Amino acid sequence: MRTEIASLGKFGLISRLTDHLRTNNSSTIKGMGDDAAVLEYSKKDVLITTDLLLEGIHFDLTYVALKLLGYKAAVSGFSDIYAMNGHPKQLTVSVGLSKRFSVEDLEEFYSGIEYACERYGVDIIGGDISSSLTGLTIGITCVGEADKDKIVYRDRAKNTDLICVSGDLGSAYMGLQLLEREKAVHTGEKDFSPDFAGKEYLLERQLRPEARKNIIEMLTETHIVPTSMIDISDGLASELLHICKQSKVGCVIYEERIPIDYQTAMMAEQFNLNLTTVALNGGDDYELLFTVPLTLHDKIQTLEGIHLIGHIVNEEEGANLVTRDKTQIPLTAQGWTKTEE
Amino acid sequence: MRTEIASLGKFGLISRLTDHLRTNNSSTIKGMGDDAAVLEYSKKDVLITTDLLLEGIHFDLTYVALKLLGYKAAVSGFSDIYAMNGHPKQLTVSVGLSKRFSVEDLEEFYSGIEYACERYGVDIIGGDISSSLTGLTIGITCVGEADKDKIVYRDRAKNTDLICVSGDLGSAYMGLQLLEREKAVHTGEKDFSPDFAGKEYLLERQLRPEARKNIIEMLTETHIVPTSMIDISDGLASELLHICKQSKVGCVIYEERIPIDYQTAMMAEQFNLNLTTVALNGGDDYELLFTVPLTLHDKIQTLEGIHLIGHIVNEEEGANLVTRDKTQIPLTAQGWTKTEE
Repeated sequence: MRTEIASLGKFGLISRLTDHLRTNNSSTIKGMGDDAAVLEYSKKDVLITTDLLLEGIHFDLTYVALKLLGYKAAVSGFSDIYAMNGHPKQLTVSVGLSKRFSVEDLEEFYSGIEYACERYGVDIIGGDISSSLTGLTIGITCVGEADKDKIVYRDRAKNTDLICVSGDLGSAYMGLQLLEREKAVHTGEKDFSPDFAGKEYLLERQLRPEARKNIIEMLTETHIVPTSMIDISDGLASELLHICKQSKVGCVIYEERIPIDYQTAMMAEQFNLNLTTVALNGGDDYELLFTVPLTLHDKIQTLEGIHLIGHIVNEEEGANLVTRDKTQIPLTAQGWTKTEE
Repeated sequence: MRTEIASLGKFGLISRLTDHLRTNNSSTIKGMGDDAAVLEYSKKDVLITTDLLLEGIHFDLTYVALKLLGYKAAVSGFSDIYAMNGHPKQLTVSVGLSKRFSVEDLEEFYSGIEYACERYGVDIIGGDISSSLTGLTIGITCVGEADKDKIVYRDRAKNTDLICVSGDLGSAYMGLQLLEREKAVHTGEKDFSPDFAGKEYLLERQLRPEARKNIIEMLTETHIVPTSMIDISDGLASELLHICKQSKVGCVIYEERIPIDYQTAMMAEQFNLNLTTVALNGGDDYELLFTVPLTLHDKIQTLEGIHLIGHIVNEEEGANLVTRDKTQIPLTAQGWTKTEE
């Protein structure tokens, strides 16, 4: 079944996509349906982040289902709010789409957004829909709340602080490599459904990532306020260099301490890729990188899913990686040049 | 002089575009440079609106300079905030652009955004830059403030309320027609610079519109809080029907009272277009349409730049236009289908 978008018109389409939406957060006074949404943040500070996602640059609809794309787009916004030690509360979703897409396609995309919003307790409060000459364009703006004295910035890491990272790294990047390889192998085939048995974790990390709400909750429960924090969307090296540059400090991290999943390691070997490079520079991890005072050393080690990978040093000492054979080499960011340059 | 964007890299580019930016509003705690911006809105409500502007759909770079495009993109966001009886305070700007564009192009675009922000007292607090496969994509999110008890929605117009509109209508649409005609005439010419003498007002309304900050200030000074308000970006008819539908009322407006500039009338005649259709359905006016209680009749008439064009009636009576020959016809919205379907 395919309903043409033109058959509904702009306002009919908005109505079909959003009439059933309800808002649940007390900070949402007015969601959809006016010139602007109205929020009340009298007791907390407001966090706001925005992302633009373009077809062919940030996603490839050959192997990404629209529902998953919606889910990931929303989650990437939530991740930025968690990286400030806040909680996402509202989301706006703007979409530009060509005639290739039907009303049902758009409903599928929105269902992914909605599912993410339900799971994370976020209200959809507005957006924009327009036609586009080519492909799909997505604009996401996420609003969150934080206690003024608990907000964590990038620029306040201090000498001797411990460097921590959640989860494991490089898996989303290996998932992408896997999808790209299968796409190349199956080029021209109409139903693209390769066998990914045993590699589900890598695919899930790439196609259906989660933001680390549980890490932020755990930090709150254990009364830990990091000195600096950032989410790892462009790769560990790039994000750590952001923290160092903005905090005017250096760092030392240890190759052997970088958390890497077994499937990531297996796949990197298959692809003949350097595993550390994958973990340092692979994108889309949505993990949290943060620093805490040295005095929290013992406490941090008891936290599940948090890995201590190094420490902050003076700016003059630079940013360095200590390899498995104890050689110290400068940390450099390759970024995720494929998608971001 | 042309600097390739690839030569700077993503972070070099962001640095070049934003390092000189300063924030001035007390509600801006942290602007650029972290995972999210931080705002404080403890005493006012927060307004938030977002727009997606796509090349070939919302703008044509054949006749729109990038600086003016930046200015208009920002102003269209401000207009939505004024339409809630609020004041814009922060703006995020996301851009996706193909290799066709240079660093200097992007600087020109940003200079337009910055100029608008300076004039309207708005801080640029964040955004996103990425490559795109085709053309230019712009995502704008505007945040504003309003006193909780002064926010004006679309859904609270009441029977007997007076219908008011600021400025004049249809001029931006005629400016667009003029540009489109000249573009067609001069197709293939390298330097596209037709003579627009005597038509400057129409071009200015299309290319460099202003949001009606002064109208909102005047309403505040005269202690008038409209019962409903909306900005006229899709045409008077469409916007008035939004107010009627959402407020569950009808309306009567008078053709002879719709404010139209002399240049608009002249140009509509030249183009053999029905002037009232142009004023009712032309887009991009960025004027304010609002309703006030009947008791304010005399007061409203003393306000400069405000035109009383009709009144609200019961829902059963429908939405109608009384023509110059006193015939009553149903009001219908053609919208601005060229750009919005």
